[in-house]
Amino acid sequence: MPLRSDWSDSQCPLARGLEVLGDPWTLLVLREVFFGHTRFEDLRTHTGIAESVLSKRLSTLTGHGLLARTPYRDASGRTRHEYRLTDTGEGTLPVLNAMILFAEEHLQAPSATAHMQIIHSPCGHATESADRCDACGEGLTPATTAWVSSARSGRPVPLATAAVR
Amino acid sequence: MPLRSDWSDSQCPLARGLEVLGDPWTLLVLREVFFGHTRFEDLRTHTGIAESVLSKRLSTLTGHGLLARTPYRDASGRTRHEYRLTDTGEGTLPVLNAMILFAEEHLQAPSATAHMQIIHSPCGHATESADRCDACGEGLTPATTAWVSSARSGRPVPLATAAVR
Repeated sequence: MPLRSDWSDSQCPLARGLEVLGDPWTLLVLREVFFGHTRFEDLRTHTGIAESVLSKRLSTLTGHGLLARTPYRDASGRTRHEYRLTDTGEGTLPVLNAMILFAEEHLQAPSATAHMQIIHSPCGHATESADRCDACGEGLTPATTAWVSSARSGRPVPLATAAVR
Repeated sequence: MPLRSDWSDSQCPLARGLEVLGDPWTLLVLREVFFGHTRFEDLRTHTGIAESVLSKRLSTLTGHGLLARTPYRDASGRTRHEYRLTDTGEGTLPVLNAMILFAEEHLQAPSATAHMQIIHSPCGHATESADRCDACGEGLTPATTAWVSSARSGRPVPLATAAVR
């Protein structure tokens, strides 16, 4: 992120969080990882991000320990890499949820299908809290949360969880 | 925000939220407004943001209806402007809280005083939810929330509320 100093050592935890998550592409990449996409090309296609920017954001996310990079071989036998959540990466879910809920409540939607819901899977209720189920009060984790995107399948998608603990 | 298209009309509410809140300086400016600062010079001093960037971020925040700009006269009689929260601006509190809680739980702090707590004022408890009181379950609003910054006064600061409803 240009035009400002590194906030990793800031006295303010908000600034330290923004050092890692303050770039808008970073949260869109995490959205796709939570939706279950792990491969560079899939992340690129679903976000519309430029290759060079995606490379940098994935470096930042692995560098800060939010994603873990593991090799695999593609159909032609070439070594590629997958990006999967870590425990720290899982911890970003309330930030994404809070942003979704803010937009749903306060910003205009361009169409009737431009919406998302956050579902607490064990009880099936849509919640309007970033980190708690409104119905039963239980804390949300990726393992107990599904997102419904009306613009995608319209069905609840169980979120990806940490591959590395 | 350069190098990407406008996400105001995105089908994804996360992207629409990021169109408004996706710049890291924007959330630091909102932090200071919640801490009670309303004037350009105070916002500049407390964030360390460059004047030109602060002007642009305040334009974005007023343009999207998160802050309201009202004139006042300074000591020398010159007309200046204050920036105060609107209802929509109040609605960003869970986003800031979620970022603070993520950093507190998952990122290293540079010192023992580099911390913040989120207090539900009516019952006095620190909460680890972005939008609910862990102790009594009530939803957090700026009117019922105080932040404690150990790096500042170390005392609970009741948050600013909407001047325009």
